[in-house]
Amino acid sequence: MAKQAAPLQLLVEQFSKFAGVGRKNATRMAYQVMSMSDAEVQALADAIRGAHTKLHRCKICQDYTEEEICPVCQSKKRDHSVICVVESPRDVTVFERTREYNGLYHVLHGLFSPVDGIGAEQLCIRELLARLQDGEVKEVIMATSPTVEGEVTATYLARLIKPLGIKTTRLAYGLPVGSSLEYADETTLYRALSGRGEM
Amino acid sequence: MAKQAAPLQLLVEQFSKFAGVGRKNATRMAYQVMSMSDAEVQALADAIRGAHTKLHRCKICQDYTEEEICPVCQSKKRDHSVICVVESPRDVTVFERTREYNGLYHVLHGLFSPVDGIGAEQLCIRELLARLQDGEVKEVIMATSPTVEGEVTATYLARLIKPLGIKTTRLAYGLPVGSSLEYADETTLYRALSGRGEM
Repeated sequence: MAKQAAPLQLLVEQFSKFAGVGRKNATRMAYQVMSMSDAEVQALADAIRGAHTKLHRCKICQDYTEEEICPVCQSKKRDHSVICVVESPRDVTVFERTREYNGLYHVLHGLFSPVDGIGAEQLCIRELLARLQDGEVKEVIMATSPTVEGEVTATYLARLIKPLGIKTTRLAYGLPVGSSLEYADETTLYRALSGRGEM
Repeated sequence: MAKQAAPLQLLVEQFSKFAGVGRKNATRMAYQVMSMSDAEVQALADAIRGAHTKLHRCKICQDYTEEEICPVCQSKKRDHSVICVVESPRDVTVFERTREYNGLYHVLHGLFSPVDGIGAEQLCIRELLARLQDGEVKEVIMATSPTVEGEVTATYLARLIKPLGIKTTRLAYGLPVGSSLEYADETTLYRALSGRGEM
């Protein structure tokens, strides 16, 4: 059996590392790279490194941004009295797409997961609590996915925040239980947002 | 609605260009790049450029290789009297995985597709015919996918090759019609190979 050329194998391995990309799809992608022009390959490699180099976490909400403070946190048009707590930066994009939410965000960069050894220290919880000290925030919406990890994280945070006298709400169960937040369609997400109940 | 940061958008666009990678998966992949270490990002970008720079087409069979002539064409253990004609280099990998084929390959780098303006000139047909001149080749196996384009290409080639007195065979219809060759499992492919009939 003749093996694939080493540089191609290496590329397949790299692509296989992406969640949701299996071996066959990774192979397909690698061959697609082979059929690209030099300029296209350069653009792809540059985009990968560019995103990684130019972006970092917003000092306030922890979302990815090119600036020190992200456009949402900087905006005077947004409602600074509401914070929507999400697992990851991609969830911010999903909420922005509904065009129904005008508050701020806070990205935890993960969820509680004892199996993977992820506890409170690994999540951006300290940064969230720091934002709640000046009394400007009136409501914190827990918008973690309706999974076990999402529920545990939301419950834990609610217990920390309630004593501060801040309203703590949870997305309504319009979301199909067990699914992942990022695949929710705009309508479902909007319904979940408007039907949110106090925890 | 706050937009995603530009470098992230650019990366999502780049990933979306891959066949089979939709917008949501591309976004997911882009965020995964963000959570990689510097070294991991470097390895990914290098693998992409490395595969593209170091590999080129084998002078004989047109498969991708690091050398001038690929290991399969160079091998004295392979049966040089049989050529298996495939659409793309990834099909070579699929055949090699069956461990049942010991002949040579010829990669067309495409199939006839009048809709996309792909005719005989765009495929590596001239290179195939050149290999059939010295009388060493006794059989050419048409192993293009069982789709309309695959059939048309196989039929066209058979008509060119038969007058040279070379046996021209076609993979048996063990392959589910309408599917793509690269997703066939090893057993099905092996059955298709052994049940091949003369055209």
